[in-house]
Amino acid sequence: MNQHILFVKRPVGWPDASCFRLESCPEPACGPEDVVVEALYLSLDPYLRGRMNEGPSYAPGFALNQPIVSRVVGRVVASKNARFAVGDFVWGFLGWALRTVVARGEGLHRIDPALGRPSLAISALGMPGLTAWVGAIELGMPAPGDTVYISSAAGAVGQLAGQFAKRAGARVVGSAGSDDKVAYVIEKCGFDAAFNYKTTDMDAALRELCPRGIDVYFDNVGGSTLEAALRHANVAARFPVCGMISAYNETQDRGVRGLQALLNKRITMTGFIIYDHVHKLPAYQARVAPWFRSGEMTFHEDIVDGLENAPGALIGMMKGESIGKRLVRLARE
Amino acid sequence: MNQHILFVKRPVGWPDASCFRLESCPEPACGPEDVVVEALYLSLDPYLRGRMNEGPSYAPGFALNQPIVSRVVGRVVASKNARFAVGDFVWGFLGWALRTVVARGEGLHRIDPALGRPSLAISALGMPGLTAWVGAIELGMPAPGDTVYISSAAGAVGQLAGQFAKRAGARVVGSAGSDDKVAYVIEKCGFDAAFNYKTTDMDAALRELCPRGIDVYFDNVGGSTLEAALRHANVAARFPVCGMISAYNETQDRGVRGLQALLNKRITMTGFIIYDHVHKLPAYQARVAPWFRSGEMTFHEDIVDGLENAPGALIGMMKGESIGKRLVRLARE
Repeated sequence: MNQHILFVKRPVGWPDASCFRLESCPEPACGPEDVVVEALYLSLDPYLRGRMNEGPSYAPGFALNQPIVSRVVGRVVASKNARFAVGDFVWGFLGWALRTVVARGEGLHRIDPALGRPSLAISALGMPGLTAWVGAIELGMPAPGDTVYISSAAGAVGQLAGQFAKRAGARVVGSAGSDDKVAYVIEKCGFDAAFNYKTTDMDAALRELCPRGIDVYFDNVGGSTLEAALRHANVAARFPVCGMISAYNETQDRGVRGLQALLNKRITMTGFIIYDHVHKLPAYQARVAPWFRSGEMTFHEDIVDGLENAPGALIGMMKGESIGKRLVRLARE
Repeated sequence: MNQHILFVKRPVGWPDASCFRLESCPEPACGPEDVVVEALYLSLDPYLRGRMNEGPSYAPGFALNQPIVSRVVGRVVASKNARFAVGDFVWGFLGWALRTVVARGEGLHRIDPALGRPSLAISALGMPGLTAWVGAIELGMPAPGDTVYISSAAGAVGQLAGQFAKRAGARVVGSAGSDDKVAYVIEKCGFDAAFNYKTTDMDAALRELCPRGIDVYFDNVGGSTLEAALRHANVAARFPVCGMISAYNETQDRGVRGLQALLNKRITMTGFIIYDHVHKLPAYQARVAPWFRSGEMTFHEDIVDGLENAPGALIGMMKGESIGKRLVRLARE
């Protein structure tokens, strides 16, 4: 029996279970040119919170009583489309359902098996990876010896941003919300240093771990973390702004203090959205995939099993309980 | 008898007369290689407020019981230095005094008489002018048809930023704090539109006057003006940050709300300080001076006479009472 998860209530502040409903739904019928996909992995990303609001953020808002949509990796189980064969691994923006029909295969992408395990197409070799690359390298422009500070360092994007900056010769410092995450980015991702922002004074930590100040701040969280980075930034620092997760579930915007540092220190702060950079994905994959194959770079996926657990896994991810890229697994490869 | 103005008390919030003291002082003695300068014009600039605080802003703090220092245009009245002749017009960072000795003429710049009246060296053809150019053109990158919004539009920098953007083919909209200033930028500087932010709802004004949104926001003030610009910005907007005068005299930083727009709209916000760009001054002057000579561009100087009036003129300028570039005149050319 097919099942899907509907978005049934707009959250105010933090979403909870009542915003979602697991339902049975019809088996998809494969019409001419259509493709039926069995979902293997649902991607859980902070930007999904923005889509739960009325009105546009940078992606259109979710409609009520429709399935939640995110990037999904799946396997073709029926196809009347010459571009897709049964057994192909694919990814696309699909509803959260066990099986989905994709009309005329539109928006569906075949995953090149040479890239490695299929889930990489929505993690290290997909948008989270390209996001890390654009922010840390293209906008951050780290020079050897620069200090790069990354918040949400153990997140899907942060862990990669740090490894890219490290390869560029920078000193890389991260912050994260648990001692396990701190240990992960130092021991597995090769960060030079990291601290637990929940148990450490941020100014003291940045003073100690970034003794020559911050040249690049990769912002995933905004709020008081951004304020601290402004205080410790060097002249001509670059602040790629990838996310402001600290604000996504707040009902009141308390403002960012200390923005005068932009001026005093000639800081460039650039918000970016990966949709503007998708044309770079093939070049990114070609450049970066070998580093994962060779083991020079690492990438942690945090897997939660079962469609019924997807809403809780999403909320938990936003509350910081996962390490690395959180995926919901619906079936085995 | 020589006179100077000492900085005698660090202000908390707004400075007042008690922060300054007018005193008699010795006539400067002209030693070997020295130059004695009679001051003609003192430049009053918002950044001077930052120098009144303890600790560095982007310029070192003023020492207590020493003269206030700013850009000064003067005339050489005695010289034992081969690079300067009596009668030369010069500018430099000098103390606020009627006459000053400049040891070995260091830091003193001869003003090319071909550039026009000497005061232009510290106004339209000096740092305020180059500031407008770097912000509006180099960082703003206005394309023909873009909408450029400028706060403090009738200020020393704003009036020029608007004229430069206009020459680049942009629609130029300004805000200022009085109806006279609004009339000035529309009638004299050729802005397409402007509004009095003290008597107009900012969102309503921006909606009406920037119907296609804001592509470049030239920020001179920060605070709620910046917040409004973030709300009305277009995707890929550029926000050169030249000043945040709304915060300079505040004892509490209330924060800037709505920074998530940086992300949603992929905005680039760049703080800049003209000291980093002084090497461009000769090229800037060569390019822009003809526009002033021909009358294609205009520049308003707001002249206050008398050294004793300088502190009040500075405070009044920060409170918004002047139109254009405020100068204190100590003597006639």
